[in-house]
Amino acid sequence: MRIVDIIIKKRDKGELTKEEIEYFVNGYTQGDIPDYQAAALLMAILLNGMTARETTDLTLAMAYSGEILDLSQIVPVAVDKHSTGGVGDKTTLVAEPLVAACGLPVGKMSGHGLGFSGGTLDKMESIPGFRSDLSTDEFIHQLKTVGLVLTGQTTELAPADGKLYALRDVTGTVQSIPLIASSVMSKKIAAGATAIVLDVKVGTGAFMTDLEQARSLSELMVSIAKLVGRKAIALLSDMNQPLGFAVGNALELKEAIKTFHGDGPADFVEHSLIVAGHLLALGGVASDEKQGYQMAQKALEDGRGWERFLALVSAQHGDTKFVENPDLLPTGSIIHTVRSPRSGYIRKINARTVGEGAVMLGAGRAKKEDAIDHGVGIVLHYKVGDIVKQGDALFTIYANNESHVQQVQDYVLNGYCWSNTPVESLPLIYGIVK
Amino acid sequence: MRIVDIIIKKRDKGELTKEEIEYFVNGYTQGDIPDYQAAALLMAILLNGMTARETTDLTLAMAYSGEILDLSQIVPVAVDKHSTGGVGDKTTLVAEPLVAACGLPVGKMSGHGLGFSGGTLDKMESIPGFRSDLSTDEFIHQLKTVGLVLTGQTTELAPADGKLYALRDVTGTVQSIPLIASSVMSKKIAAGATAIVLDVKVGTGAFMTDLEQARSLSELMVSIAKLVGRKAIALLSDMNQPLGFAVGNALELKEAIKTFHGDGPADFVEHSLIVAGHLLALGGVASDEKQGYQMAQKALEDGRGWERFLALVSAQHGDTKFVENPDLLPTGSIIHTVRSPRSGYIRKINARTVGEGAVMLGAGRAKKEDAIDHGVGIVLHYKVGDIVKQGDALFTIYANNESHVQQVQDYVLNGYCWSNTPVESLPLIYGIVK
Repeated sequence: MRIVDIIIKKRDKGELTKEEIEYFVNGYTQGDIPDYQAAALLMAILLNGMTARETTDLTLAMAYSGEILDLSQIVPVAVDKHSTGGVGDKTTLVAEPLVAACGLPVGKMSGHGLGFSGGTLDKMESIPGFRSDLSTDEFIHQLKTVGLVLTGQTTELAPADGKLYALRDVTGTVQSIPLIASSVMSKKIAAGATAIVLDVKVGTGAFMTDLEQARSLSELMVSIAKLVGRKAIALLSDMNQPLGFAVGNALELKEAIKTFHGDGPADFVEHSLIVAGHLLALGGVASDEKQGYQMAQKALEDGRGWERFLALVSAQHGDTKFVENPDLLPTGSIIHTVRSPRSGYIRKINARTVGEGAVMLGAGRAKKEDAIDHGVGIVLHYKVGDIVKQGDALFTIYANNESHVQQVQDYVLNGYCWSNTPVESLPLIYGIVK
Repeated sequence: MRIVDIIIKKRDKGELTKEEIEYFVNGYTQGDIPDYQAAALLMAILLNGMTARETTDLTLAMAYSGEILDLSQIVPVAVDKHSTGGVGDKTTLVAEPLVAACGLPVGKMSGHGLGFSGGTLDKMESIPGFRSDLSTDEFIHQLKTVGLVLTGQTTELAPADGKLYALRDVTGTVQSIPLIASSVMSKKIAAGATAIVLDVKVGTGAFMTDLEQARSLSELMVSIAKLVGRKAIALLSDMNQPLGFAVGNALELKEAIKTFHGDGPADFVEHSLIVAGHLLALGGVASDEKQGYQMAQKALEDGRGWERFLALVSAQHGDTKFVENPDLLPTGSIIHTVRSPRSGYIRKINARTVGEGAVMLGAGRAKKEDAIDHGVGIVLHYKVGDIVKQGDALFTIYANNESHVQQVQDYVLNGYCWSNTPVESLPLIYGIVK
């Protein structure tokens, strides 16, 4: 078998065999196939596509390129959730403690943020002391004893995916549905997940802006899960405006804490309960997602969710006084309120613009190695469909550098549109793929 | 400017600007752009195409990536010919001496063979002593004094093309009309050619098997030449069977020598005169290609072509006694005649099979660094359309290794088809693109 023949086959719209895909993934991971041949193949895959069968084989080859965690002795069902990334998406912070509170242990490996969408670990790391670098032993111990873990990868899962993703990033081959699907699913399979809720964001603040594309991606990921004997559902959820009000690490953490105390934004509360409900249903604790939703809602209202969140922070060496008194959390020294330049119904808040504004303030990374500022970000005061008067506080900028403020104000304002006539609020969920 | 944005633009079917193309070619030649990004861009170009304007800009950027020869002080018109490569194609050996004999100096840089189509220099190097490594000074001196040169590249012309071609070879990106056209034309422009006859081979023994593709390539190359102020014409010539009878280095040289002595195969003589006629017309020595053809024919018949050929061999230190007495040239020690297994009209002689058979005998290279055997090859005795009787000598194998003979016999015979009813002979030229 020669890699150049595999490239030519895909270039000419052929369907690669399982053996050809494994030859590529193993050869590339081991360094026998150079980057330039992998790059040519990735571009051919992006432009000529892959069947569901090819994508499944690619997923499995990447998953098995490294260690596969087996959680079957530790949890009844290894549930996991994955968000394709959005602006203001702090769902994991609320949904997973609620699920754990309902009796289903959740051990989740998450990531840091890159680009305009934030990373769950960055939000948790706003808490002084919080460790997100648990070892595999620590992960398993905490999953057994606390029933809730939220950390970085404990080991190099799916190393082929890591290497290919870095190559895709610099060769214009990120935006391929089969490549995205196999990247997400290979890591979930390697992490031992047997039941997965996929939160596929669609809109201006997601990397998929087109609903049909997002649906195709969702269908592909769910079909891969089924083909390898895992359960999965995908929620097609809105990202045409930020989720909730807060965008930025400590600001989002504070919003999650407020949510536990009954004071969360309506859209974010609803979204967290929907995700938790599906996790509980897939995990066999609830009979269906509606019952799961009600169970999660009860755990939110009676404080069991908050109790689990505190246990999580404490178990991972976070200083709980910062979450018990969120005013202690890092916060930008410059607080600048931006007022609405006109009256009207808010028709659009470009989520991407808000996310990029937060990155300009220092809340996110342009490159992997960049440091981030946990205290900065943007808090909206209205959402699409709300009515505002000229001069109303539209959003607040939290900054640590005066020179960023004007620039971010102009940039974010540019993403707003108003209407003189009433505007419907945006739906939360566009569809569910089972 | 970032190369990843250029890749994404072409991936999304955009038209690259001149600046973007120059940024890529210069960055890649200087080593600032890595192979993996170039490979992704090449695959995107192969799959999404390039306009004539983009291809012209690519050609010029590659041509100007190194030294450009200027022959304007040495010859009235710097004519050149380029064959896209075929089996038995020894046209240069006859056509160029004829052109020189008609008063138009020709300095040609040629190449060694790779794969199943032979290289002009390999054929000339069958002559003991013949040098094909002239320096630029020697090249110019001989062009002035002898009016005829046939050597390898005197300097690294179009280094970007050399580097990109090596990458294309291992990334499945050879077969792209804009990439082929720019590769050919960049070298011709760098070599100082102002009037170019392109001999575009089409058929089983060419890398283009489809006439319409070959026509597209021809039109593109001619249009590039015009856009950069050069004259060019392209002949779409047959390569569904070998040109002439002989395939293999010294065997082809002998056939060229026989041609000068009035005993060449009809198809090869005709093809050489057509090419020479076009060169004389483009070079301004003949009023049109018909007059050029007649001038070349006269130079062939009256021995002036042969005299120029001898002068060429002599000037480049070849021992002329080997061309004056071709029996002295290297020849395979095993001469094996293959007889026709049936009677009938020959309907097909797969040129590629014959070329690959010659490579198996040692006449060609599988890899650049392979040594070749000048004495081996295959001589056909009939062409498509001829009638044969069972047991007639169909072709002769010249070998130096007994173990090759049976294998090559079976392999080459497999490329023959016969018919019980008369078959038309193949045309020489399918069309001319001006």
